[in-house]
Formats: sequence, C-alpha cells, structure tokens
Amino acid sequence: MSLRKPALDPRTVEAVVASGYPEPYRSRVLPRSKRRIGDALGLTRIGINYTLLPPGKESSMRHWHTHEDEFVFVVEGELVLRTENGEQRLTAGMCAGFPAGSEDGHHLINRSDRDAVYLEISNRDRADGAHYSDPEVDLAWSPPHAPGRFTRRDGTPF
Amino acid sequence: MSLRKPALDPRTVEAVVASGYPEPYRSRVLPRSKRRIGDALGLTRIGINYTLLPPGKESSMRHWHTHEDEFVFVVEGELVLRTENGEQRLTAGMCAGFPAGSEDGHHLINRSDRDAVYLEISNRDRADGAHYSDPEVDLAWSPPHAPGRFTRRDGTPF
Repeated sequence: MSLRKPALDPRTVEAVVASGYPEPYRSRVLPRSKRRIGDALGLTRIGINYTLLPPGKESSMRHWHTHEDEFVFVVEGELVLRTENGEQRLTAGMCAGFPAGSEDGHHLINRSDRDAVYLEISNRDRADGAHYSDPEVDLAWSPPHAPGRFTRRDGTPF
Repeated sequence: MSLRKPALDPRTVEAVVASGYPEPYRSRVLPRSKRRIGDALGLTRIGINYTLLPPGKESSMRHWHTHEDEFVFVVEGELVLRTENGEQRLTAGMCAGFPAGSEDGHHLINRSDRDAVYLEISNRDRADGAHYSDPEVDLAWSPPHAPGRFTRRDGTPF
C-alpha cells in the first residue's frame, strides 16, 4: 500500500547519514541516520525526524536547548537516556521530554546489540542555541552562527 | 521499572475522557481518551497527547488549523485518515502531517474492532483557530473564544 500526503510511511523517506559535528564527536554519532519526516510532510513550525541509532552510537553529545522544547519517543529497540541524574533505560513505547531552557543536558546511547529507532520532535525557533553539558565536549551552537555551524565553547571556529 | 522525568512511560499518565464539543459531535468522539504527556513532561511550546480511540469513534470532526502544524503517529491498531481526497488506512508506525493554514481538513476514524492508539503533536500558538470542513458540522473554534469554547460557524453560542 502506497500512502500519499498528508499520510506518510516514515520508512519511505530518504535516510540521511550526516552530522555537523567535528571530530571526535562525529564518530560518536555516525552512522546514525535521520529521515526528515516533518519536512517531507511540509511542516515548518515543528521539526520531526525518524532516527535510527546503531549499536554503540550516541544520538548527540549531551546538551540542552535554549528556545526549543524537545521530545523523543522510542519506536523500536532500546536506548539509554543519560541526564544529570544518571541513566534510564527506554524501550519501545516510552518517551522523554526536555523543556526549552531547562539546563539538564540529555542524550541517548544505544548500548544494545541491535538498531534502535526513535522519533525526535521539537518546535522550530531561529533564536535557539544549544549548550553542551559534558566538560570534555568543547562544542557550542548559538546564534548568530546557528543554523549551520558549530564552534568551540569560546566561539572560535574549528 | 519506574521512570522519572525527563523520561516517561505514557501509559502511566492519567487518561482524560473529555470533549469540548456539544452534541451531536461529542458522542462521535467519546469515550476517546487523551494522556497529556507533553504537559506531564513540562513542555509548553509543543503539545503532545497519547490518545486512545475506541472502535467506531472519530478523533475529532474533520478540521484544519490556522496557526498550528499538527502531526499524528500511529502507535497501536489501525485508523482511517479522512481528508478532502478520500480515505487512507494507517497502521502502527505510519504517520500524517497537517501544515498550519493548509485548508485540507482531516480526521481519524477507527473502523476496526479494537482500540487504536496514536500520538498527536502540535506547536502551541494562542492565535490558532480551527475550521471545520464537513458541511453538516456547524462548529467553529476561533480567537478570541479559543481556548475554551466552541461556537456555531456564525459565532453564536450553543
């Protein structure tokens, strides 16, 4: 059965394997793939990716957003959610939410032996910036550089 | 296993069986139940419900939004998506998206013999209004009445 818009089977959207991170962070997330299903559906006020994270990989470096609420919903497999207060195991049907401006950095890690799939959803706000929480991660994402470019914490380019 | 915020098992959130619709529309959706998981997670810029639709019931009357993108993702069961161009069958893992201002009204109908569960997600915008697409549905939802009150199409109260 082939769906037509406004309906969509997420698995029919192109899977993009890409990251704006420099090394050594890039290798910690790739070959994570994202299917940009919000874009495919013509949505502009919310962004929605259908994301596949292979075993051993991280969704992102641990971070929080200044102007965007973020929500994740596990579709398949098993992920570890890591925040300031430690780790929790999320299986299919479980979710997590990160309010804009809440300074508790988060990311997901696939510590299982099979692919995990999740939805990641946020409102879109051009003023948004991201702060990275782990001391060893020297990354920043903030206007006016965003969207499009990561810098070091002090704003200098890689 | 009990999750703590920012993680959440949607099924642990209270299921609210309620509708702001007057009759005869109210009986067409209830006892649909919504678990307000975005609220439970402290999100304010996006709204997220985990919604259960029993057999024979409709998600809403067919409508479109002026200022809010809307997205649905089927978690369990089977739903019929009805839009201007007809009907499509959505099963678990499929989705649909409705850009703000796109005048193609939509709703979901459970024509199966078991409960269906879906996520419904939108950005939040106080300027939002909803227009109802089927001629026999004499409903309107528009500022300054919203949020909180439906009227007839001509703005008069029920």
